[in-house]
Amino acid sequence: MAASGDHGRLVLVTGGAGYVGSHCILELLNAGFDVVAVDNFANAMADDTGKLPESLKRVEALTDKKCTFYQVDMLDAAQLKNLFQKHSFFCIIHCAALKAVGESAAIPLAYYKNNVTGTLNLLEAANAAGVKRFVFSSSATVYGTPQYLPIDEKHPVGVGITNPYGRTKHMVEEILQDLQKSDDTWDIIILRYFNPVGSHESGRIGEDPQGPPNNLMPFVAQVAVGRLAELKVFGSDYDTPDGTGVRDYVHVVDLAKGHVAALKIFDKHFGLKIYNLGTGRGYSVLEMVSAFEKASGQPVKYQIVPRRGGDVATCYGDPSVAEKELGWKCQKNLDDMCRDLWRWQSQNPKGFSSGK
Amino acid sequence: MAASGDHGRLVLVTGGAGYVGSHCILELLNAGFDVVAVDNFANAMADDTGKLPESLKRVEALTDKKCTFYQVDMLDAAQLKNLFQKHSFFCIIHCAALKAVGESAAIPLAYYKNNVTGTLNLLEAANAAGVKRFVFSSSATVYGTPQYLPIDEKHPVGVGITNPYGRTKHMVEEILQDLQKSDDTWDIIILRYFNPVGSHESGRIGEDPQGPPNNLMPFVAQVAVGRLAELKVFGSDYDTPDGTGVRDYVHVVDLAKGHVAALKIFDKHFGLKIYNLGTGRGYSVLEMVSAFEKASGQPVKYQIVPRRGGDVATCYGDPSVAEKELGWKCQKNLDDMCRDLWRWQSQNPKGFSSGK
Repeated sequence: MAASGDHGRLVLVTGGAGYVGSHCILELLNAGFDVVAVDNFANAMADDTGKLPESLKRVEALTDKKCTFYQVDMLDAAQLKNLFQKHSFFCIIHCAALKAVGESAAIPLAYYKNNVTGTLNLLEAANAAGVKRFVFSSSATVYGTPQYLPIDEKHPVGVGITNPYGRTKHMVEEILQDLQKSDDTWDIIILRYFNPVGSHESGRIGEDPQGPPNNLMPFVAQVAVGRLAELKVFGSDYDTPDGTGVRDYVHVVDLAKGHVAALKIFDKHFGLKIYNLGTGRGYSVLEMVSAFEKASGQPVKYQIVPRRGGDVATCYGDPSVAEKELGWKCQKNLDDMCRDLWRWQSQNPKGFSSGK
Repeated sequence: MAASGDHGRLVLVTGGAGYVGSHCILELLNAGFDVVAVDNFANAMADDTGKLPESLKRVEALTDKKCTFYQVDMLDAAQLKNLFQKHSFFCIIHCAALKAVGESAAIPLAYYKNNVTGTLNLLEAANAAGVKRFVFSSSATVYGTPQYLPIDEKHPVGVGITNPYGRTKHMVEEILQDLQKSDDTWDIIILRYFNPVGSHESGRIGEDPQGPPNNLMPFVAQVAVGRLAELKVFGSDYDTPDGTGVRDYVHVVDLAKGHVAALKIFDKHFGLKIYNLGTGRGYSVLEMVSAFEKASGQPVKYQIVPRRGGDVATCYGDPSVAEKELGWKCQKNLDDMCRDLWRWQSQNPKGFSSGK
């Protein structure tokens, strides 16, 4: 993926200390980009010294390259203004967000503030500085209840979204579309992630949830490592082969490479583009558990409990537009996802705080 | 409408110097409420002295009552916090917003910032102060393209909204619904306005657009008074009786009384309620022009031009839920709307700046 011509192109990555952000930065550095990372440590572990977060220290070690880091909150417009005065960015990858679905229903104002107001602040600062290339970390949750499968980018959005987190992603997509329509000098890429899992194959960086995991695979991994007692499987009576929910899991390294691939289209003006980032196929909860047991050699105790409100039976995407336009598709399979996740979890049973 | 039991109940009205806000305050004062009004003067005329805006000076004169005013911007969280420390509000009527459809497409970030972030700031400040009764000035624009007529409150929302202004209203509705679901101690009323027109029957307060009017009737009135040369009628080939667009126009005094009526349901806990505020019937552009000519005795020169993107043929609401639950319905007819608008426009050809 590396292209020496990208060298010296400076990319701002927000939420850079987090799960997706840190994996993106690793791939960006490997591809020859320079990176400024910012994070407010809402979801990421800060370093004791208050300088480089642990995840990015490890990214530097893995890549043998340096990245610049600032603790910046998207709600602090003055900090953002300073950031754009200090650096001249080629483009922005905006990963910063609160992302826990359940929590978003409990404290919606915090989610709307962080994710919507935060993005507006970032866009205003970028606009004022003339930085008009923008990649947004969106989510397949904007599609709501699937009306057909696989879900392509033309699928309706914004209808039947069951939680405030998903609504913040949809609102930001609408804001970005209106912004681009109002000012055609913007180039904006919306990446709709399916379900990111796994970790870098080194097992040195990975997903490090603060508190009980919200997503299936970190939960599975924490059960396997003995940090949690038992997995709850929400519903086994869905209309799927084994009755459990089916989702499109995408290896986070593939996802990160999708961001690097996306940046290449900034060489020409295009306006606004939307890409699904997923594998194009679904696995059930029990298939994921079984694959993880095989990869880890650990049993994963689980219990079937009733369905959870807002969950759909089956969801997977059509990633063919990304393949056609970005030359990107997933390279890693289910075994890779499980093996790399287990490597991260077993080497770092308590996440980044394990290594210190 | 007055109820002595309401005396001493203090209502915060945001956007209080504006068109709907000032008419609401007049009716609130007449009904015995106390009022604190705030405005940032984005759409309203500030007084030379920097104290009470001209619209509210006239409201005080008309009602022979006082209201308290502060210049506060919804984007200034510190000002909002001070406001809630200074006063103990019974409830909030949130009218403050940028509201020009065309402008919203040109400067969407400003619209999202003012209308969405501004409302989030207000809700956070109110929540922190324990003020959990909230009335939101929404708009029938959230219904998008009508799927049936008349539009009742169960009509789908959020699909086919053609401009950022309308999207900000829909986003705030979603935020309010999520907030109420997360904390059942909130009581929230969403009022979906159809097309407010006219003015107080005294002609002393009215709609005072800064720059060319965005809406039909202020434009008609400014043509009649000689301030504008000619009305443009966008499309005469719609599937309507005379080919021009049909809308549900509601007299602003009826609309304001709808707010006072709505406050009565705060006596009991109800969660979240949504009400259409409209007359339940539509008039075409040419019917409105003709009625205005009759009421004013002035000719209104107009020219038919092509349709405008995003306009629908016909839109009118079903206000029967508001009648049933709030005991409110429109009392004023088309002649009242035109006569009162003309009184305002002819007495104040340049709006509030005429009187100074």
